[in-house]
Amino acid sequence: MSNQTDPFKAGPSAAYPPPVDRLLNELAKLPGIGRRSAERLAFHVLKSAPADAAALAESIRDVKKLVRHCGICFNFTDSEVCSICADPRRDASTVLVVEQPRDLIAIESTGMYRGVYHVLMGRLSPLDGVGPDDLTIGDLMARIGDSSRNARSVEVAEVVLGMNPTLEGDGTALHLAEALASTSVKVSRLARGLPSGGQLDLASKAVLADAIEGRRSVG
Amino acid sequence: MSNQTDPFKAGPSAAYPPPVDRLLNELAKLPGIGRRSAERLAFHVLKSAPADAAALAESIRDVKKLVRHCGICFNFTDSEVCSICADPRRDASTVLVVEQPRDLIAIESTGMYRGVYHVLMGRLSPLDGVGPDDLTIGDLMARIGDSSRNARSVEVAEVVLGMNPTLEGDGTALHLAEALASTSVKVSRLARGLPSGGQLDLASKAVLADAIEGRRSVG
Repeated sequence: MSNQTDPFKAGPSAAYPPPVDRLLNELAKLPGIGRRSAERLAFHVLKSAPADAAALAESIRDVKKLVRHCGICFNFTDSEVCSICADPRRDASTVLVVEQPRDLIAIESTGMYRGVYHVLMGRLSPLDGVGPDDLTIGDLMARIGDSSRNARSVEVAEVVLGMNPTLEGDGTALHLAEALASTSVKVSRLARGLPSGGQLDLASKAVLADAIEGRRSVG
Repeated sequence: MSNQTDPFKAGPSAAYPPPVDRLLNELAKLPGIGRRSAERLAFHVLKSAPADAAALAESIRDVKKLVRHCGICFNFTDSEVCSICADPRRDASTVLVVEQPRDLIAIESTGMYRGVYHVLMGRLSPLDGVGPDDLTIGDLMARIGDSSRNARSVEVAEVVLGMNPTLEGDGTALHLAEALASTSVKVSRLARGLPSGGQLDLASKAVLADAIEGRRSVG
C-alpha cells in the first residue's frame, strides 16, 4: 500500500476518451446494436488496420452520397433509373410489388423472374401509424394509369403482389388488391405452401392450411 | 402478359448498386455481424438523415486518428498518457491488471478503486495461439522493475489480478502470479463468490464452491 489515500475507497472514476465515447454513441443508435455490441464493434474498429476502418467510414459516406431510389420502382440505384427498369431484356408489362429492396434482391437471386418491380418501402401498419400515403402506393397506381411513368414506357398488364406472408403483409396486399380492382390490370399473388427443404411435421398450422388449400392436381 | 419473353422464366438477375454492396461487405467484416445484420444496418444508414450517417462515418475516422494506447498502462487515451495514469489523485503504487479496456471501464464505473491499471490486451489462450509475448506482460514487469516506467514514476507496491473468472482468465492469472513471485510486490486477486443481486439456487457449482471456500466470519 502507498502512503496516499486507500486505493480501494471510492473516488473519481474515469471513462473512455471522448472519441471512443462518440463512436460508441453513434454505433448504439443503429438498430439491434445495444451498448455491449457497440463496445464490441468499437474495439474491433480500434484494433483493425487503419485502411479497413477508413474503408468502412468511406462506404457509409459513399452510400449516402451515391445511392438513391429509382424514379420508377423505388429500388436502390446509383443512377436516375435502376438497372432493372432500364434493362430492355426485362418484361416491363409485369410488375412484382415488394415491401423492401431486400425482398427484391431475394427474388432476383432466384433468377426466375424477368419482369420489373415496385418497392412499397414498407407495409401498412396502422398500429405503427404507417398508412397508404407513407408507402409508394400512389406511384404504383400512377405507373398503371400512365405508361410513360412505367419502365421504358411499357403499359402495365399484370401486377404480382409479393408482400411478406405476415399479418401486415396480407393487409397491405388486400389494400392493393382493392385499389387495383378498379383498373384493367391482372392481379396475382405469390404462391403459399410448404417451404421447399423444410419438414412437414415442423410446419405451422397456417403453412399446412395454405399447402392444403393451394394443392395442385398431379398426373 | 406481354408479347416479350415470359417474365417468369430464368434470366439475368440484378443485385444492389455497387455502393450498397461495398457497405454491406464492410459491415459484414465486423464481429458478430452476418449478411442479414449487415443488410439491416445498411438499410438503416440509407434511410437515416445524412447528418447521422456523416456523424457515424466521422466517428469511425476520428477514433482511428485520435485514440491510441496509454504509454504506461495500455488503456485507451487521446493523449500520451491516459487520464488515470496522469491523475495525481490516483494511487500509482497499486496496479490492477485487467484483460481489456472494457474491464477497466467496468471497474471504474463502481467508483470503488483509486489505484491505477495495466491492460493486458487479451488473455493467454494457447488454443488460439495467444502467448505471453502477445500480451503486455513484459510492459507490466518493466513497470515493476523500473518506477520511471510506472504512472508518475511511483514505485509499484501491489498488483491486483483482475482477469475474468474463466478458464483462460485463471490461466493468465496463474502465469502472472508466477512471474510476479520473483519480485517484491504484493500480489492479490479480486474476490470470487455469489454475484450480488443473483439467486443462490441459480448459481453454478463453481460459484457456490467459490462462495464456500471464500466465506468470511461475521460478528
